[in-house]
Amino acid sequence: MKPPVWLEQAVADVPDFPKPGIRFKDMSALWRSAADTSRCSVALAAGLEDVDVVVGIEARGFLAGLLTAQRLGVGFIAARKPGKLPGPIDRIEYDLEYGTDCLEIQSGSFAPGDRVVIVDDVIATGGTAAAAAELVSRTGATVVEIRAILELSALGARQRLAPHVVRSLWEIAD
Amino acid sequence: MKPPVWLEQAVADVPDFPKPGIRFKDMSALWRSAADTSRCSVALAAGLEDVDVVVGIEARGFLAGLLTAQRLGVGFIAARKPGKLPGPIDRIEYDLEYGTDCLEIQSGSFAPGDRVVIVDDVIATGGTAAAAAELVSRTGATVVEIRAILELSALGARQRLAPHVVRSLWEIAD
Repeated sequence: MKPPVWLEQAVADVPDFPKPGIRFKDMSALWRSAADTSRCSVALAAGLEDVDVVVGIEARGFLAGLLTAQRLGVGFIAARKPGKLPGPIDRIEYDLEYGTDCLEIQSGSFAPGDRVVIVDDVIATGGTAAAAAELVSRTGATVVEIRAILELSALGARQRLAPHVVRSLWEIAD
Repeated sequence: MKPPVWLEQAVADVPDFPKPGIRFKDMSALWRSAADTSRCSVALAAGLEDVDVVVGIEARGFLAGLLTAQRLGVGFIAARKPGKLPGPIDRIEYDLEYGTDCLEIQSGSFAPGDRVVIVDDVIATGGTAAAAAELVSRTGATVVEIRAILELSALGARQRLAPHVVRSLWEIAD
């Protein structure tokens, strides 16, 4: 899959970050360009209809998620790390390569039947997106799609996230 | 200072969060409303001219900062917690009530003379905003203003941040 030129030019590979063996996708250059950020928001929202709310995953998913929500003209809900959201919360723990992590959403964020799009910047193994989808689904809302800017497609997130629909602006195979 | 009605209605006081004695300002309802989010972006960008880039402070400042940047048509730079940004970084440590914290920005984010607006969601003591302003200033860029949605004005952030100009959409005195 050939990415849009503006996106390909805005992503830098950083070897061994945040730890040895990981090749980090640095999208700082994307946000540094107002025009590319605007292009990104159009692309993230493309083809989405009948969406009630966008969920963005802390922290970089806040950027992509809020852009998508504003482009669609719908609200934005934050899925956060533990202890950040006040009030009654819904929480999910999920497995990482080593150990576990946790996502929280404020209870009552969705009306039953709300059609929700989950947005993150990068989908790697899909573990965090799967946790967010499960958390949203438990509330009675419907996950209509999971969207990301980049997807490291060799890591099998689509299989893990099925039957949810996953779309990304750039599927990186290697 | 009387806040805009849409903002007053979107902010909830949460007592004793994240710890006893702290009254948390919950703005989740603001982001849940596409119309209020759009109003907020207009208000945050109002009156700003000749700005080259917006810096948003992790994590909730990403939302307010990116909105401001897109409304102004300029780029967005993330000021992040330690260890999140790859590559050469500029770092500042600063004092909290108990202990210290740290902010990082990627080196080379600014051109010399860049006119920078720093944006966060809430300014309380101003310690984090002061650290961000110092970090930006050290690079040779100019901090033209510090903007926030809410400001807890009894905590003296304006004095601490002087001579930087601080503007917030709602100065809460009590």
